[in-house]
Amino acid sequence: MANKERVFNFSAGPSAIPEDVLLQAQKDLFIYPGAGCSVLEMSHRSASFQEIIDNAEASLRRIMDIPDDYAVLFMQGGATLQFSAVAMNLAKQGQKAAYAVTGQFSKKALAEGKRWTDAVKIADSSDKNFSYIPDITEDMVPQDAAYFHICANNTIYGTTWWRKPETGKVPFVADWSSAILGAQIKVIDHDLIYAGAQKNMGPSGMAVVIAKKELIDREIDPVVPIMLNYKVAMDNGSMYNTPPCFSIYMAGLMFGWVEKNGGVAAMEKRNHDRAAALYEYIDNSKTFSNPVRPCDRSITNVTFTLPTQEDTDAFLKMAKGRGMINLKGHRSVGGCRASMYNGLPDEAAPALIACMKDFEAGKRE
Amino acid sequence: MANKERVFNFSAGPSAIPEDVLLQAQKDLFIYPGAGCSVLEMSHRSASFQEIIDNAEASLRRIMDIPDDYAVLFMQGGATLQFSAVAMNLAKQGQKAAYAVTGQFSKKALAEGKRWTDAVKIADSSDKNFSYIPDITEDMVPQDAAYFHICANNTIYGTTWWRKPETGKVPFVADWSSAILGAQIKVIDHDLIYAGAQKNMGPSGMAVVIAKKELIDREIDPVVPIMLNYKVAMDNGSMYNTPPCFSIYMAGLMFGWVEKNGGVAAMEKRNHDRAAALYEYIDNSKTFSNPVRPCDRSITNVTFTLPTQEDTDAFLKMAKGRGMINLKGHRSVGGCRASMYNGLPDEAAPALIACMKDFEAGKRE
Repeated sequence: MANKERVFNFSAGPSAIPEDVLLQAQKDLFIYPGAGCSVLEMSHRSASFQEIIDNAEASLRRIMDIPDDYAVLFMQGGATLQFSAVAMNLAKQGQKAAYAVTGQFSKKALAEGKRWTDAVKIADSSDKNFSYIPDITEDMVPQDAAYFHICANNTIYGTTWWRKPETGKVPFVADWSSAILGAQIKVIDHDLIYAGAQKNMGPSGMAVVIAKKELIDREIDPVVPIMLNYKVAMDNGSMYNTPPCFSIYMAGLMFGWVEKNGGVAAMEKRNHDRAAALYEYIDNSKTFSNPVRPCDRSITNVTFTLPTQEDTDAFLKMAKGRGMINLKGHRSVGGCRASMYNGLPDEAAPALIACMKDFEAGKRE
Repeated sequence: MANKERVFNFSAGPSAIPEDVLLQAQKDLFIYPGAGCSVLEMSHRSASFQEIIDNAEASLRRIMDIPDDYAVLFMQGGATLQFSAVAMNLAKQGQKAAYAVTGQFSKKALAEGKRWTDAVKIADSSDKNFSYIPDITEDMVPQDAAYFHICANNTIYGTTWWRKPETGKVPFVADWSSAILGAQIKVIDHDLIYAGAQKNMGPSGMAVVIAKKELIDREIDPVVPIMLNYKVAMDNGSMYNTPPCFSIYMAGLMFGWVEKNGGVAAMEKRNHDRAAALYEYIDNSKTFSNPVRPCDRSITNVTFTLPTQEDTDAFLKMAKGRGMINLKGHRSVGGCRASMYNGLPDEAAPALIACMKDFEAGKRE
C-alpha cells in the first residue's frame, strides 16, 4: 500500500523507487550494519563494501540470468558516456559501425559514435515520427561493421524492440536503460547491453554494462581515456578508481527487491498488465490517443496526446492535483507520458486511468 | 559529540561525513520536503532539483569565494576522468602540456595526459620518495604548454602544495581532491581546479570543476566524448544528461555545513590544529615517524611509520579495537595514514594520539 504523503511519480528518470527500498536505505544511512559508519563514508577497499558490490553483481546475474562468460561492470557517467565507450572499445578509430535510429537517444548515440567511428545509419523510423520499430535483417547490416547499436526502449516515444535484430556475425549492442529489469531481456541474444541506473536500478549517476568477456578483453587505442576502458574496468572489478559506492549499494537493494518480488518475469507481467490497461483505455478513448504501432509499444513508457495544448495543460494540472507528477511528455515532443517503472506503486496506473476517465467525462479540477 | 556507535573513520576517501549532514540526508531520504518523493527519485528537470543544484553552486561560490568569471561544473566519473578531460579540453591533440609528479595521482594524471598531449614532466619528487614538494619557477615551465598540472594534495604521501607554482602565462591546473574545503584555496590563483567529491564534498561518484570561463568556452576536437566536454557541461548547467542528483544534493549539504560552521577558514584552522598536534607527537616520538619535509606537510593526510611491519600490524589492531578504522597506509606504500577530513569528529585526533602514546609506552590491546 502506497504511503499517502508520497505522490505517484511517473517520471521518466530519475524515477520511482520502491518504498521498501527507500526505507531500507534510510535505515542504513547513518550506520551501515556492522560497519560503524554510513555506506556513504565507507572505504571502497573495505570488506563491507566489497561484500556490497559482490552481492549486487551476484544478484543481478541471478535475476537477469547472465552467463559466466559475460562481465558485469558498474561504470560512471550514465548511459551517455557509454555511447562513447561502446564506440571507443569495440571499434578502431574510423572503422565502420552500424546504428538504427528510433528516437532521440539512439540519435544521440549515433552522434557520439560518429566522433570515433565511420558510423552508418541502417534504419530510421523518423518517417513516421518514431512510432514504430523497424525490422533488421542480416542483409541490412554491413558485415564489416564493428557493431550494430540500438536503443532498445525509446523512453520519449514509448516504443520497444521486442523483436531481435538479425545482425549476422556483427556484435549486437543495446542500450536497455529504460526497460532493464522491467522486461525480460535475453542476455545471450546480445554481445553488449548497457543501461543507466536511474530507471529500474536506483539513483542516477551510474551505468551497468553487461558484455561478452571475449568482446571487451582487448587492448584498445591508447588515446582512449582510461575511465572508458572496459578491459580496465573488468580487470579491476569496476574499481580502477573510487566507484560510485552509494549507487552500487542502491542498485544492490533494487536487485534484491526484484528478486524478492518474483524476479524479472513478475516485473514484466506487472508492467505489461498495467500498460495494457492504459493502452486499452487510450485506444477506446475519443480524447486520448497513442500513435505507436501496437506490436512496438513499450510497457514502461506510455505516451499519449490530447486534442489541444489547452487540454494537455488542463489534464496535467488535474492529475497533479490528484498527486500524479511528471506526466508531461519530454520537452522535445510535448504531450503526455506515463513512465511506469518497477518502483511505481500498484495504485498509480488505476489512479491515472480514473483521472483520464473523469477528464474525458468533462470533469475539471 | 560523536555518536558512540560510530567509529572514528580515518579513511582517505570515501571518508567521514559530519553526523549532522548524515542525519539531515536520512531525514529527507523517504520524502524530500515539498516534493512528495525522495531526492533519489526526483526528476532532474523538476523545480525542486533545480533549486538543489542552484543552491549547491551558490553555496560553493560563497565558501570558496569563486568569482563570476569562473564556471562551476558538477561532473561524473571522479577525478580520474578529469585527468583525461583536462587534457582533451585544454590541449589540442599532440600539443605540449607540463606536469609535476609528486605522488601516485599526479603520476596517473600524467599518464592520462600522455594519451592526448605531448606531456612533459618538469618536476618530480620521487628522488626522495615524494616526501617534499618542489618549487616551480617560470623558467621551468615550457611557455608553449597548453597547461601546467599538479595534484595539490598528495593523499598517499601526505604532502601539499602550499606555495603557488609560477607558471608564467601557462594556465595553471590543480587537482585539489583531498584538500578542497579543508584548506583555503585561492581560486583566482588558478585557471582550473578540480576535485573528486568523496573527501570533503560528500559521497563518491562526482567531481567538481571550477574553471575560468574563457578557458573552457571553446570548440574542442570533435573526437572528444561529449560527457568530457567542459563547454557542453557549462552551457547545459551540468545537466547535458541526467546528473548524479543525489551526489549534488549531498554536496550541497556539505557546503551548507561548512558555511554554518565558520567557512573554509574555520575548517583549515581545525584541520591545521589537529594535524599539528599529531605531527608534534610524531616528531617527538621514538616509535612513530613521518618523513615529509615540515613545510610541505598536508593538514588532511598525515602519514606515519613504525619500526617494523609487526609493529604496524599491532598498532593498527589496537587502534581498531578502540574504534579507529582505515588507518592503514595506501596499499602502494604501507605504513599508516590518518586522513582527517572535515567530517571527522573533534574527538578523533586526540583519541588517535592517546592510542599512539599507549602503544609507545608498551601497551598492547
